[in-house]
Amino acid sequence: MSPEGSNKPRRGLIPLETVRQMSGLALLQGMVEGRFPPPPMAETLDFALISAKHGEAVFRGTPGSHHYNPLGTVHGGYAATLLDSALGCAVHSTLEAGEAYTTMEFKVHLVRAMTEATGDVLAQGQVIHRGRRSATAEAKLVDDAGKLYAHGTTTCMILPI
Amino acid sequence: MSPEGSNKPRRGLIPLETVRQMSGLALLQGMVEGRFPPPPMAETLDFALISAKHGEAVFRGTPGSHHYNPLGTVHGGYAATLLDSALGCAVHSTLEAGEAYTTMEFKVHLVRAMTEATGDVLAQGQVIHRGRRSATAEAKLVDDAGKLYAHGTTTCMILPI
Amino acid sequence: MSPEGSNKPRRGLIPLETVRQMSGLALLQGMVEGRFPPPPMAETLDFALISAKHGEAVFRGTPGSHHYNPLGTVHGGYAATLLDSALGCAVHSTLEAGEAYTTMEFKVHLVRAMTEATGDVLAQGQVIHRGRRSATAEAKLVDDAGKLYAHGTTTCMILPI
Amino acid sequence: MSPEGSNKPRRGLIPLETVRQMSGLALLQGMVEGRFPPPPMAETLDFALISAKHGEAVFRGTPGSHHYNPLGTVHGGYAATLLDSALGCAVHSTLEAGEAYTTMEFKVHLVRAMTEATGDVLAQGQVIHRGRRSATAEAKLVDDAGKLYAHGTTTCMILPI
Repeated sequence: MSPEGSNKPRRGLIPLETVRQMSGLALLQGMVEGRFPPPPMAETLDFALISAKHGEAVFRGTPGSHHYNPLGTVHGGYAATLLDSALGCAVHSTLEAGEAYTTMEFKVHLVRAMTEATGDVLAQGQVIHRGRRSATAEAKLVDDAGKLYAHGTTTCMILPI
Repeated sequence: MSPEGSNKPRRGLIPLETVRQMSGLALLQGMVEGRFPPPPMAETLDFALISAKHGEAVFRGTPGSHHYNPLGTVHGGYAATLLDSALGCAVHSTLEAGEAYTTMEFKVHLVRAMTEATGDVLAQGQVIHRGRRSATAEAKLVDDAGKLYAHGTTTCMILPI
Repeated sequence: MSPEGSNKPRRGLIPLETVRQMSGLALLQGMVEGRFPPPPMAETLDFALISAKHGEAVFRGTPGSHHYNPLGTVHGGYAATLLDSALGCAVHSTLEAGEAYTTMEFKVHLVRAMTEATGDVLAQGQVIHRGRRSATAEAKLVDDAGKLYAHGTTTCMILPI
Repeated sequence: MSPEGSNKPRRGLIPLETVRQMSGLALLQGMVEGRFPPPPMAETLDFALISAKHGEAVFRGTPGSHHYNPLGTVHGGYAATLLDSALGCAVHSTLEAGEAYTTMEFKVHLVRAMTEATGDVLAQGQVIHRGRRSATAEAKLVDDAGKLYAHGTTTCMILPI
């Protein structure tokens, strides 16, 4: 392995040492501003974090035909992925340096089908409860007119890193 | 309408008329045997239905670095997508011709992180309750050694098509 | 069976014919105003519907030592019962005469323990999505100071009665 | 402090010092065998722990008219309370002395209505995943013929006591 590359993070990842020294919100803002690369899953499914503040995170995605299930509507896993991102990052935004979180479970309600005609969607996550060792959050997936497509909640564990 | 294909289904989709005339299990077996094209989302995230019988469906996937979140483990949306597929198709396998289903909600428990070192995983779905107007199912996501990574349950509505 | 009693509803129940002819909101307001008897489970666990409007329902309860688990805090089933009531009645409040609903599933997040020192709690339910055949709702369980103890979501099916 | 009992636990509770010194399974077996008093909520809603082994717990209840909602079927909170008990105690049965657990969330699927004609029901809980800091479990609520009325899953946190 070449000397100049062995410590470089792999494409789309953020080095653990960087994560350890930043608050969750500072790290998320670095992602919004493009100072950290987009994570691989966000490139694969074509969505991105567009804003974060304490207790909140918003992702934008563009559902397309490459997200379809066999019957020609967007797969439920697409909504789940965007909601999981928004739920987790809402919790992430509350972390101090030295804290980490892990998503233990999330639930997704699918209330309307999406197609490529839906246009862009926003996954808006918000913390409901932030305790010392755990947190809960809720998220909604809406189009640009505010029409609701899916919503959900999560339970996360808070850990020292 | 032009002769060369305006009625042809789009890539990766199954025509509604075909769906209407087949039982759910016959349709799923057609997918397993490659007589229907893989759905777009399965190509995008690299997973496939590998077996189906009445009340059960199994998907296989290969978690890789293109499924990673920013910290270098597989995004929770990957497990959610495979579990949603297995849950929904387990219910789908119980449909008579003329019946359809829609996933109303599902919940995902994430119990272990996956990386590209995990190797292939199986999402095994099984119906728990099949009523006239609704059904529930459970699914587990395991590696080839049977180690559990995630599990979940769903509520589906059964409708005339 | 005596002539004057054979059609009388049993204690705490509302006759189906009455239910059929009223909107959900009118029926819930009859419960709030005491024109219908409190349902048996509400007497057994000591809670009551205190307000309802379109898409919303609020229950009040008084957690006490008769709701305790073996370790001296209120059993999770108490929060679940109040949240299920608030979730279901929020959906109920949107029904036209001739419509019924059934709760298919609900999820409960328990974020703080309750004891008899907690004092009265409110379970506040609110519809998130009301479709033709299904609805979702969320509810929060808070004390009189607004402190959160539990929250949850539900999926209900809408049916002709 | 009066000699006759100021340190006696209150009715239906188990002293924390006792809990601390026993494994979860030993404590549950003490409840099954009646060496510990039934917890207050179990008396209020008329159900009891009838068996426990490592990773499993079974409760028995008798749904009756005092558990009814306004329309004459058993309130969803009854199923939730029995399932929460079975889910939590399945996890509890895996604790070493010095460990405690707390239920973070649970989800309940209601698949059939119960009435007083249902007869006795069993809530059978089983651990799915037991990690160092968290555990998941599933439970089913069935009648004596094995017919399914409700089922659910939980996420618990494991803590030092």
